[in-house]
Amino acid sequence: MGISDFARLVKDASIELAAMGADQKNRALDEVAKSLVERREEIIRANREDLARSEGEKLAAPLLKRLRFDEDKIAETVEGIQSLIGLEDPVGRTLLATELDDSLELFRVTCPIGVIGVIFESRPDALVQISALCLKSGNGVLLKGGSEAMETNRVLADVIIKATEKAGVPANWLKLMETRAEVSEMLKLDEYIDLIIPRGSNEFVRYIMDNSRIPVMGHADGICHCYVDEEYDLEMAVKIVVDSKTQYVAVCNALETLLVHEGAAVRFLPAIKKALDKKGVEIVGCPRTREIINVAPATETDWKTEYLDYKLSIKVVNDLNEAISHINRYGSGHTDSIVTSSRGKAARFISLVDSGNVFWNCSTRFSDGFRYGLGAEVGISTSKIHARGPVGLDGLVIYKYILIGNGQTVAEYANKERTFKHRKMDKPYSL
Amino acid sequence: MGISDFARLVKDASIELAAMGADQKNRALDEVAKSLVERREEIIRANREDLARSEGEKLAAPLLKRLRFDEDKIAETVEGIQSLIGLEDPVGRTLLATELDDSLELFRVTCPIGVIGVIFESRPDALVQISALCLKSGNGVLLKGGSEAMETNRVLADVIIKATEKAGVPANWLKLMETRAEVSEMLKLDEYIDLIIPRGSNEFVRYIMDNSRIPVMGHADGICHCYVDEEYDLEMAVKIVVDSKTQYVAVCNALETLLVHEGAAVRFLPAIKKALDKKGVEIVGCPRTREIINVAPATETDWKTEYLDYKLSIKVVNDLNEAISHINRYGSGHTDSIVTSSRGKAARFISLVDSGNVFWNCSTRFSDGFRYGLGAEVGISTSKIHARGPVGLDGLVIYKYILIGNGQTVAEYANKERTFKHRKMDKPYSL
Repeated sequence: MGISDFARLVKDASIELAAMGADQKNRALDEVAKSLVERREEIIRANREDLARSEGEKLAAPLLKRLRFDEDKIAETVEGIQSLIGLEDPVGRTLLATELDDSLELFRVTCPIGVIGVIFESRPDALVQISALCLKSGNGVLLKGGSEAMETNRVLADVIIKATEKAGVPANWLKLMETRAEVSEMLKLDEYIDLIIPRGSNEFVRYIMDNSRIPVMGHADGICHCYVDEEYDLEMAVKIVVDSKTQYVAVCNALETLLVHEGAAVRFLPAIKKALDKKGVEIVGCPRTREIINVAPATETDWKTEYLDYKLSIKVVNDLNEAISHINRYGSGHTDSIVTSSRGKAARFISLVDSGNVFWNCSTRFSDGFRYGLGAEVGISTSKIHARGPVGLDGLVIYKYILIGNGQTVAEYANKERTFKHRKMDKPYSL
Repeated sequence: MGISDFARLVKDASIELAAMGADQKNRALDEVAKSLVERREEIIRANREDLARSEGEKLAAPLLKRLRFDEDKIAETVEGIQSLIGLEDPVGRTLLATELDDSLELFRVTCPIGVIGVIFESRPDALVQISALCLKSGNGVLLKGGSEAMETNRVLADVIIKATEKAGVPANWLKLMETRAEVSEMLKLDEYIDLIIPRGSNEFVRYIMDNSRIPVMGHADGICHCYVDEEYDLEMAVKIVVDSKTQYVAVCNALETLLVHEGAAVRFLPAIKKALDKKGVEIVGCPRTREIINVAPATETDWKTEYLDYKLSIKVVNDLNEAISHINRYGSGHTDSIVTSSRGKAARFISLVDSGNVFWNCSTRFSDGFRYGLGAEVGISTSKIHARGPVGLDGLVIYKYILIGNGQTVAEYANKERTFKHRKMDKPYSL
């Protein structure tokens, strides 16, 4: 069987999964959690094989660290599943209820998207997390993980499929892919697959977009900004910038460019340089920045670069408007923060900055599904349709319109025999 | 200037438009309505030119009819704008409010998508309707209409731009394109354009999807089904099928395939044939259908065909499950209806049919933005992300996350100095 055949089976299974209630899906998640613990030795053994092979292939140390899936990771993953069980079912929520006419009731009700193709990096815990989110939201899933984690992923997929089967979920709801050729084939299957979520580099996401007509939910770069206004608290600004830049540099919501109002620059720039020097952050700056602090010059390229490292670009701007224009021009629509004591300026920044996450007086590092209280996330979207910002269960559902009548025809309304009432109802769909 | 330059200007203007309040946008819509009436002679003159030229080019009569934009059409269009003014502003609605911690408040608030590229058919009223929907939802728009309506569209675009400018909307929020080359160029501008809405044939929509990485919201075919169960009311079933098929055959929510339970076939098929014969509907049927009524044979192609004409395919099925499988296999996810007196079977149909609109005991022709009470629509989406079914103002907005703090850093939470509270708040965002 090729991936096309598998995708059809996943699609068929996804229809059944879509009709399952919250209890059954939660039971299936519980079985997965139990099975991860029961089969932990098998999982760890497979992971050791992956680690040994990858070490032999000289995989870089940080990647080896992400690949490791040990007792602690299993415990963490199980905890993640348990918290997911506690979240409300995203399926079956009534978003709109309208009485079109007597005995003609319209409901807009959430339902799963269908089949989701996910391509993810080498962390094996990502496989469990993504599968659990898809299951809870009633979606079938085709998964492709990093080849470094091949053996671990095989065991984990087997654990999940067998455990969910115990709870009555059709085995075909999840399919693990193992080759790039299978991914290429998957990109053509718009008949069976409704959404692709690629987790990886900007280039990789664009490659997927250019090679599939299936909708893609992904994020490009995270070029995040912090703007320090002239009306500001010095200590707060230093604290927020240091946290945004250095709390964890290798992530998409880390700060890359600092914008400083010219009225704040003389006092703030020396203070922030001192704080960032202590953390070993390399700074590049615009000419006006370099008149105040001794840093290397920033080039046009710097404003467009996601360093993901201990490096920061700084630009002095004339006012709030210039800061907003810079962010909308060079930013990636991910996360941008303003530090100001002026409520009016904060409101303007929030209204005009065209990003998924716009913050006032706090660190850019807060944009994250767990911190937002959404539960786990499948990723952070910089797309401007469907779901934006951290995407949790809510982003894995769509809705259908359900219309319940007793024989009504459109002709009666076209002939003006009857007219629509369009009365809002305050009741959920149920049959 | 090329389309790329124009698109950048539209994007800049869209940022300003996004920050405008409901009052200002409604004032702009009101100016458009007034100006359409004031400049009606100019509009009708331009339309006469288009009509004369198109008649000379032997444009088919139904298309000529759609091209006509006279006093009545203007009055209708003005009425549409006025009802749009009465609808709630889709922008600025708080979808979620969570207190992450003391003085750290998260809001999910609706905002415009940004810039939308719309390619539409030859009806000039579509230009006004689409522009009005984009304005009300705060989106910039690039428009390309049918070349038959070139002169009319030019005047209408000028009317809209000048009228909205009077209300303080930046003139560049709307740009009319006139050539196919411009459309091809537009498809590459993912830097400036956030969504493309192509209205046209299935092939055309697929062409757009294959040639752009910009998300596309459109509908493919409307292959709609009606399933008549064995537990049914004969009179109701005839009425619903006749309306679904014949009330207006040239539209996407018209019925194309009728599925009949074997237990209903002997009584129902002769009755429906008699009713459809009166309307001049050609019927093709499966072998079991042809054992009961005298119709031409249906081929595999018929199940996949959107006739948009006085033609219907009929299949006899063993049970509800076969009907559901047929619909999910051959349907286009548009609109499907079940006629049954069994609440349980209706619930199963609604739950398992994977379509944007699933109906019980009413005509497929009801799936429409006006009939649903959504106001005007930009189209009916068969996509399974973002917006599905009739798409009105709600489908033209996305949201941003707004986080308001007083100096919080992620380090404090990572170090366990502080913990998240994630308390749901019952208040809208306001600054």
